[in-house]
Amino acid sequence: MVAYDVFLADCPARTTLDLVSGTWSVITIVALGRGPARYTDLQDRIGGISKKMLTQTLRKLESNGLVDKRTLRTAPPGTEYRLTELGRSLLEPVQALSQWAEANTEALLDARERVSA
Amino acid sequence: MVAYDVFLADCPARTTLDLVSGTWSVITIVALGRGPARYTDLQDRIGGISKKMLTQTLRKLESNGLVDKRTLRTAPPGTEYRLTELGRSLLEPVQALSQWAEANTEALLDARERVSA
Repeated sequence: MVAYDVFLADCPARTTLDLVSGTWSVITIVALGRGPARYTDLQDRIGGISKKMLTQTLRKLESNGLVDKRTLRTAPPGTEYRLTELGRSLLEPVQALSQWAEANTEALLDARERVSA
Repeated sequence: MVAYDVFLADCPARTTLDLVSGTWSVITIVALGRGPARYTDLQDRIGGISKKMLTQTLRKLESNGLVDKRTLRTAPPGTEYRLTELGRSLLEPVQALSQWAEANTEALLDARERVSA
């Protein structure tokens, strides 16, 4: 068993952290935590994300085994994304981070005001 | 009480998530979770971080009330950083994310290999 360590510049765990800690990855994982979703649902759900960024984020998550993509035999054909088991294991930490952001934004705004006053 | 929502593009919670979810913020908060540290200690501890990036990260965390800076009356004078109470409340979610990265890097590497095979 190899010990991975995010404090080491060259450790693959650093790359993993880069991948999962970005805002768009966090929000996309949280969005998919509600269940499988079509590309267009995700785009509606995640305010301000561009098509380019959503496509890039989903591809990154997919190629790292966190998200599964399947083509729907609908008319018109759609694409559905869902978390893999590995992706679901990431849900708890990213939800905690996202909930922390929502719960503590008021306190951060207050702090910024005090600093700039 | 205002409801903050990271899914809304213009919500300040999105800015908070941007601030706390980056790799360098996560690693710096985790590093300071072990106790107050001097600038040089942090630089040694966080592999691969440039002076510019460490200074920028600490300033961002400080101006948002997550980190306190104080000047040490030592010879030569030093600067010590520590988490504020607000910063300590962030420790649990970012530690969970960082530990997830360390624990699941092997699985991500396997997934990448399967995809590229």
